[in-house]
Amino acid sequence: MALKHIAESTVRRLSDYLRFLEELEAQGQQTVSSGELASLGGTTSAQVRKDLSFFGSFGKRGLGYTVTALSRSLRQILGLERTWKVAIIGGGKIGRALAQYHGFRERGFDVVAVYDIDPARIGVSLDGVVVRDQRDLDADLTTLAVDIVLLAVPAEAAQPLVDRVTSAGIRAILNFAPVPVQASSRVAIRSVNMALELEFLAYELVNRDA
Amino acid sequence: MALKHIAESTVRRLSDYLRFLEELEAQGQQTVSSGELASLGGTTSAQVRKDLSFFGSFGKRGLGYTVTALSRSLRQILGLERTWKVAIIGGGKIGRALAQYHGFRERGFDVVAVYDIDPARIGVSLDGVVVRDQRDLDADLTTLAVDIVLLAVPAEAAQPLVDRVTSAGIRAILNFAPVPVQASSRVAIRSVNMALELEFLAYELVNRDA
Repeated sequence: MALKHIAESTVRRLSDYLRFLEELEAQGQQTVSSGELASLGGTTSAQVRKDLSFFGSFGKRGLGYTVTALSRSLRQILGLERTWKVAIIGGGKIGRALAQYHGFRERGFDVVAVYDIDPARIGVSLDGVVVRDQRDLDADLTTLAVDIVLLAVPAEAAQPLVDRVTSAGIRAILNFAPVPVQASSRVAIRSVNMALELEFLAYELVNRDA
Repeated sequence: MALKHIAESTVRRLSDYLRFLEELEAQGQQTVSSGELASLGGTTSAQVRKDLSFFGSFGKRGLGYTVTALSRSLRQILGLERTWKVAIIGGGKIGRALAQYHGFRERGFDVVAVYDIDPARIGVSLDGVVVRDQRDLDADLTTLAVDIVLLAVPAEAAQPLVDRVTSAGIRAILNFAPVPVQASSRVAIRSVNMALELEFLAYELVNRDA
């Protein structure tokens, strides 16, 4: 199936809706209106209806959406009906925090391996995941059937590792290194640069009305 | 000064250009062409010229940009010529990793305090920054002249803390809690949701051509 041309902001809102639906499900609520979803997500009910319309017809006018059915559909749309295997490269502070972040497993992302080049870090257990020697990375990616690689390495190591893991067949990378990285259009790359987020806030503090 | 209507993507590219310029500066390079900046940043030289044109006239046709002058201008534009004081709320795994992340200080973001409500965490030193009792937060924000708050707390604690710190005068928040938060338009908020980034990758893995 070709990539649907859905804006990133839409996908993010779908993720938010799913979170709210899961909360409502836990509370035993059976139906929800677009207005209710909108107010939880800080958007409008027209936006909610538009977002959901990309993917088919949900809900009935005046009756709202069935909570369980809509959350099941969203999980399917977002690719969350299965577990994804995640490998983290880099066992420094960021890599360790990511390895121990419970929010991943809760959402179906299973950290199966952490890699480092530093002998002092190799062999250390992080919530049950032992840090492995980065020399084993290429073979492991296949053996462990890794779906997504998280890069938590210094800037200069990032692009060579992107090249290396994409050669090994990886098609999704979340980059925490403070540098933009590139790969072929067949590879999905997201970057999280925390210093850059702070710089954006600094920019707004300097340029916004007092 | 009113907020200039510069797209977020432009600000991000300016941050990237600045990084490259600083590398070139360290290597002793004196001038740089828009083409060279473009190839480092994975964009086009027309884009580089357009991005820089928002902020005035830099460089000379055929001669390129003076590395030191352009990087000084970009630091000024991005609000990086000064140090920003950062407080982290939440001394869990994410909060601790952020407190010990060296990338912040290098970019002029100085973590001056970390807060938690858990007595077992209060008093612990994180690279010289002692975790403080969250009851002292409101008074401290003023005393310590905090500019930016990083929220590394559970979902349900996020919005009440946003309300609390904005009441105390905070106008920039970086939210790591896995939930959208809201404040008045006078407050700049950025959110980093790592599970959401993974969900976006999962979405692309499911919907992209194989």
